[in-house]
Amino acid sequence: AICAAIRAFFDGAENKPLAGRKMIVTAGPTHEPIDPVRYIANRSSGKQGYAIARALAKLGAAVTLVSGPTRLPEPEGVTSVQVESAKDMLAATEAALPADAAIFAAAVADWRVASAADQKIKKQDGDLPDLKLAENPDILATISQLSEGRPNLVVGFAAETQNVLENARLKLGRKKCDWIIANDVSPETGTFGGDDNRVHILNGEGNQTLPLMSKEDVATALAARIAEFFHGK
Amino acid sequence: AICAAIRAFFDGAENKPLAGRKMIVTAGPTHEPIDPVRYIANRSSGKQGYAIARALAKLGAAVTLVSGPTRLPEPEGVTSVQVESAKDMLAATEAALPADAAIFAAAVADWRVASAADQKIKKQDGDLPDLKLAENPDILATISQLSEGRPNLVVGFAAETQNVLENARLKLGRKKCDWIIANDVSPETGTFGGDDNRVHILNGEGNQTLPLMSKEDVATALAARIAEFFHGK
Repeated sequence: AICAAIRAFFDGAENKPLAGRKMIVTAGPTHEPIDPVRYIANRSSGKQGYAIARALAKLGAAVTLVSGPTRLPEPEGVTSVQVESAKDMLAATEAALPADAAIFAAAVADWRVASAADQKIKKQDGDLPDLKLAENPDILATISQLSEGRPNLVVGFAAETQNVLENARLKLGRKKCDWIIANDVSPETGTFGGDDNRVHILNGEGNQTLPLMSKEDVATALAARIAEFFHGK
Repeated sequence: AICAAIRAFFDGAENKPLAGRKMIVTAGPTHEPIDPVRYIANRSSGKQGYAIARALAKLGAAVTLVSGPTRLPEPEGVTSVQVESAKDMLAATEAALPADAAIFAAAVADWRVASAADQKIKKQDGDLPDLKLAENPDILATISQLSEGRPNLVVGFAAETQNVLENARLKLGRKKCDWIIANDVSPETGTFGGDDNRVHILNGEGNQTLPLMSKEDVATALAARIAEFFHGK
């Protein structure tokens, strides 16, 4: 009887406010190939996105985690999809729709190399190679502006090294997402690759600055905010 | 008595043919910054270089391992120096001289971005950024062509995706190193990141092709060849 009561408590709706909700989380960097051995990357560790996926799953959501290359183990209780490039990440995100919410924590490369080489570019091929870049698909803007099947809540991240709040506010308007989670990733903050994060949540109603805390705690706070958003909907 | 005999056997000069020799091994990729959050990288895992460092140390050599960013733990019994860019790797290699042998197993980026940005390049800054590249220092050629303090044995690696032996032979002549270890890193071989490797040892006397084997076994075979080279010198 006690066991049943405990089980009921932990399984109870009051502890699974996101039960029945489907959520997509993207995480990590993307790798954009230059040739078979070289690529353009960024310093995202994936820790924040993985923590958010776990926090949402803990609140009962059915989470699909679309992850670029990271060193992290796939979280339990979450459907993981591993991708490399931004194009692959968009395709995997679209394949995971429909969803109630989409949280885009990945640090997606803005650009890819326009025509990646099939063979390793040789140094002695003469001059320096010209890395012509092409714009990558904008996953956040694409999903935010879907005319059909847009998630009720679309959350973007802004990794900035200067004018953090101002740049994040501009991004919110440009992408047409619902919330932007802004963070300062200047090297001196240690956010990229580190365990702590100081974030600001921006939406149509204003800004909320959370204190510096672990990425786990940021994820828990964010998941609670998301549960609040869906409460009664 | 038996213990002492066993200890003497394993500590014996016959099992430490490289005792008293100093060797430098480079390993892993290099990361070349584009801006504070983006960089150019390559798919080297560092496994082959780390295995060589361990194999040389096992034969008694005093090994300095100069490593780019990898997921590997620092090997025991070896002095590890962690670097990011090719410029840093050259500086760390020069700082580790003099040495009897230098084995350049790292996959050093041929190019870096000519002027890495101090701040994150913003997507809305207008047009696509132009990644002007500059040639990186050639660590293998620099050390091979030292007029003073050149190691007695300088070994380069050639990671090729086509015409493996031909390209490696050209590289041997161009760099003026003593040996080239050539391997095929086409994606279908799984060499980059994988545990197996098929290598060819090229020097002034000819080519020797080793069978496909683990990177550990390649390292053991190569360390034995290096011990043979120094035998009686």
